[in-house]
Amino acid sequence: MLLEAVYHRPKLNWSYAYDSETIHLRLRAKKDDLTEVYAFAGDKYIWNQSKELIPMSKFASDDLFDYWECAIKPAYRRLKYGFLLKSDDDEIWMTENDFSKERPPVPDRLFEYPFINPADVFKVPAWVKDTVFYQIFPERFANGNPDNDPAGVLPWGGKPERDNFFGGDLQGVIDHLDHLSELGITGIYFTPLFEATTNHKYDTADYMKIDPHFGDTEMVKKLVQACHERGIRVLFDAVFNHSGKTFAPFVDVLEKGEQSRYKDWFSVREFPLEVNDGVPTYDTFSFEPLMPKLNTDNPEVREYLLNVAEFWIKEVGIDGWRLDVADEVDHQFWRDFRKTVKAANPDAYILGEIWHESSPWLQGDQFDAVMNYPFTDAVLDYVVRGTLDAKGFANAIGRQLSRYPQQASEVAFNLLDSHDTPRLLTLCEGDKNKMKLAALFQFTYGGTPCIYYGDEIGLDGEQDPDCRKCMEWNPDKQDRDLFEFYRKLISVRKDLSVLRTGSITFLHAEEGGSKLAYERRLGKESVLVLLNNYDAGQTLEVPAAGQAWHDAMSGDSYETDNGKLAVKLPAYGYAVLTQSQ
Amino acid sequence: MLLEAVYHRPKLNWSYAYDSETIHLRLRAKKDDLTEVYAFAGDKYIWNQSKELIPMSKFASDDLFDYWECAIKPAYRRLKYGFLLKSDDDEIWMTENDFSKERPPVPDRLFEYPFINPADVFKVPAWVKDTVFYQIFPERFANGNPDNDPAGVLPWGGKPERDNFFGGDLQGVIDHLDHLSELGITGIYFTPLFEATTNHKYDTADYMKIDPHFGDTEMVKKLVQACHERGIRVLFDAVFNHSGKTFAPFVDVLEKGEQSRYKDWFSVREFPLEVNDGVPTYDTFSFEPLMPKLNTDNPEVREYLLNVAEFWIKEVGIDGWRLDVADEVDHQFWRDFRKTVKAANPDAYILGEIWHESSPWLQGDQFDAVMNYPFTDAVLDYVVRGTLDAKGFANAIGRQLSRYPQQASEVAFNLLDSHDTPRLLTLCEGDKNKMKLAALFQFTYGGTPCIYYGDEIGLDGEQDPDCRKCMEWNPDKQDRDLFEFYRKLISVRKDLSVLRTGSITFLHAEEGGSKLAYERRLGKESVLVLLNNYDAGQTLEVPAAGQAWHDAMSGDSYETDNGKLAVKLPAYGYAVLTQSQ
Repeated sequence: MLLEAVYHRPKLNWSYAYDSETIHLRLRAKKDDLTEVYAFAGDKYIWNQSKELIPMSKFASDDLFDYWECAIKPAYRRLKYGFLLKSDDDEIWMTENDFSKERPPVPDRLFEYPFINPADVFKVPAWVKDTVFYQIFPERFANGNPDNDPAGVLPWGGKPERDNFFGGDLQGVIDHLDHLSELGITGIYFTPLFEATTNHKYDTADYMKIDPHFGDTEMVKKLVQACHERGIRVLFDAVFNHSGKTFAPFVDVLEKGEQSRYKDWFSVREFPLEVNDGVPTYDTFSFEPLMPKLNTDNPEVREYLLNVAEFWIKEVGIDGWRLDVADEVDHQFWRDFRKTVKAANPDAYILGEIWHESSPWLQGDQFDAVMNYPFTDAVLDYVVRGTLDAKGFANAIGRQLSRYPQQASEVAFNLLDSHDTPRLLTLCEGDKNKMKLAALFQFTYGGTPCIYYGDEIGLDGEQDPDCRKCMEWNPDKQDRDLFEFYRKLISVRKDLSVLRTGSITFLHAEEGGSKLAYERRLGKESVLVLLNNYDAGQTLEVPAAGQAWHDAMSGDSYETDNGKLAVKLPAYGYAVLTQSQ
Repeated sequence: MLLEAVYHRPKLNWSYAYDSETIHLRLRAKKDDLTEVYAFAGDKYIWNQSKELIPMSKFASDDLFDYWECAIKPAYRRLKYGFLLKSDDDEIWMTENDFSKERPPVPDRLFEYPFINPADVFKVPAWVKDTVFYQIFPERFANGNPDNDPAGVLPWGGKPERDNFFGGDLQGVIDHLDHLSELGITGIYFTPLFEATTNHKYDTADYMKIDPHFGDTEMVKKLVQACHERGIRVLFDAVFNHSGKTFAPFVDVLEKGEQSRYKDWFSVREFPLEVNDGVPTYDTFSFEPLMPKLNTDNPEVREYLLNVAEFWIKEVGIDGWRLDVADEVDHQFWRDFRKTVKAANPDAYILGEIWHESSPWLQGDQFDAVMNYPFTDAVLDYVVRGTLDAKGFANAIGRQLSRYPQQASEVAFNLLDSHDTPRLLTLCEGDKNKMKLAALFQFTYGGTPCIYYGDEIGLDGEQDPDCRKCMEWNPDKQDRDLFEFYRKLISVRKDLSVLRTGSITFLHAEEGGSKLAYERRLGKESVLVLLNNYDAGQTLEVPAAGQAWHDAMSGDSYETDNGKLAVKLPAYGYAVLTQSQ
């Protein structure tokens, strides 16, 4: 038994309250090293009456490790625990500091989950896992009202540049909600809508005002109401790490320097405010002088931003916030933010933009989820870049699942591209089959999938600004086959709740190869998903119960033979199989 | 290279801000596996200009692992980083998800410490590491005023029982401050002083009132002032997990049941309040009906308790709070508590009672330190129980140091016994030499040591209530040799700042044996500490610079020979060696 590989630590993803009654315990061990794992657990105040061995099961694996898990409902919400590890030829007890051949005689030195306090339980909004998101970059989605176009607006469909404008606005979104409903969309994430100088609006001038080139507060209320009537929820983008250069407090500091009453709203390293050799004398996002970093350590700034967060929920009824550059803002601020937002709307979704491991933000006190770029990387490495084989891909997914409490994974925001990356079709070098395969995984996996506007009708584009092209509204120029694929995929996801909330088990993940098969399971319900990530046809064989299976995507039927299902898939083919009744 | 043993994760004890400019990075690896470790780090926004390899050094080890560390001051407070691991025959690069033979070509998939925000920096009070604490159980320390004795008080010095009283009070403490000053004490931790029915006062009746058998608010003000005049700081005990049964809101619930306006101040599983088969129908500390658990999820309760925390700081000037059963109270409450307490006194020390691993409370948002019972266990296992050899002891200490950010270890509350354990002398079965050896480690190690009242004059006692005997004030019955030992030990600790704040390196930790030698180092200053945990004399040999060394405890001098120092120690002997000038 490789003890150096065994890992457990209290709290985080290792022992957490799943709900107000249930504790999940997890343990990591070397891959394929252990045959059985048990939690040895009880209430420390009545240890002898309550102690028991609770079997754990392998719920995820990566290249080096297996992750074991169990769920426990302790009668008095307290848990003292250790682990019993079994391999083919060994039995070891694990306590907080030691490994031992002997069962711990008393509970004193075991791990502890002291008490499930309701205030600490990580609660995520239930609607998110059933939602399909669509990301809209408003300047490029649709121009519904030429009267509010910015000066120098260019004809729709031109080449996007860092600083040009095409006149997209909120009326344009309202005009095209039918497109979203037809596709099956139930959530929109809008990149920023507040007044700003750039086309992307990440340099806020006024957090309380819709950009006049997009519309106004009345218009956005109308939009949100129209969305809600269709069952579409709406996220706004909170750019709270930094403001824009035209934000009134910063303008005041620019004008008055150290005499400004707003000087502590920012983090000025040295007056005067200037840029030397590309480095501003004040903290900014990156080294961008247009985006001065807000000092959230200042109570005035905190109050101002928390008021913004509350205002748009109460005034317009938005369903959550996406948080820009969320990792560079302090944790204390986000804790206050969560309290404010959840008080205004207990069902609001709080989604942080973090590209790296996000465990410190996903403990229940800050975000519900993050933009799951490690998921993006894994899918693209497997389907697009070819740097991961099927085995490596399954490992990357397992690693992600192991890192966060289950409720965070249930509402993970799973995207394949965004305004900050090249478009999926372009990454696939125009190969629609690869694009479909990537999307197929995205929609048959847990979390909440998001489509970047236009992907569904074949919009392409390199790294920004090229990925921010105008939406194509001419049906003849839209890829209707792709649209139909996405529409079908969303409809299958909606029909099969197991695809949204079931567990995932990889049945086959070919080492050095391309074949991937996994089961999604929820109670007795099961869906088998098969992917052939290869430029030639292949046959996938997987164990399967019952007699007959049915591909929810193609409508094809398959018979089991001797407890196995053999499915021939074309190049980049896939199947989403449910058992026929 | 054993990759399964290599561990790093963002934040926690693995990457944290030590101060507003400095990030500490730590990495765990299999013991003796790596020869060199480097952080590969830079600013992601100017990666090419800023990236560098920063050497890490081994700062702690336990039985399975080495822990490597480095300190980095990134110019713009942002850090993207990976690691380069070298062994005798291998070189591996570690990124957030992978190990690779190749240096990562771009920083995208490295670990990240996004930004050092001042609000997140874990700041501990500077005075704590220079303080020597003394724990007083007021009912048993000294009876200074017979007029306030409880009914049925027993003659001083009788056998302590669960429910008897001897009349100790605040006047008694004031009367004996000379004893503490003579010993060298600079901090007192008082177990609860507020009105309650028991002799230990952990069943609070009124959080705003000093127990009348101890004194009153004026008396405690006088006491705190007298302490401050002597340079002694004072901690009170906050029993916020539960109240007593006589706490007015609980009395109201007992009387009015579900009609009480205080019913949501507690966590009642079922009305009426009663005890069935030893289990109350309401949540309590353990299953103790006298101690109903407070519902800190209720804003009224939070406000009440935070007001208590603030009141005693502002009214009486206490220097911190020790938090009873701290792990069973919710994290959100402690975060608010920290804000309230540090606003009232930025220098206040917040000390949680947690017996197990406390990393979730030691991130800068909750406590400064915990009562370090794992330290207690390690010392007792080595010196008293003999269940750890010198090697095992060094490993246990290394493990503890690895678990928390450095600032938490700097103010760890290191005790060897308390009102909740048998007394040290009793654990040592009356063997004063063992007791001294245990204390010698305690006082030559970092953190803040605490003496349980009476240990210094030879008080003994089994598990509570026996460990709560009346203090012995008759000089003829006091062990003055022991007192002199403690006085000397404290004086040596005060003289040698390196003992309080230096790093620790084990020079020798005998496997299967008893000899222990370690160096404390701070800049150029160095102290060598030698312990002979054996019932016969032994000679310890350690590498040592310079020529002559001097034992600060005994006054003896030693000469180096060929870069080594050989010191003959008697049974359970020790030496605290400084280089002679």
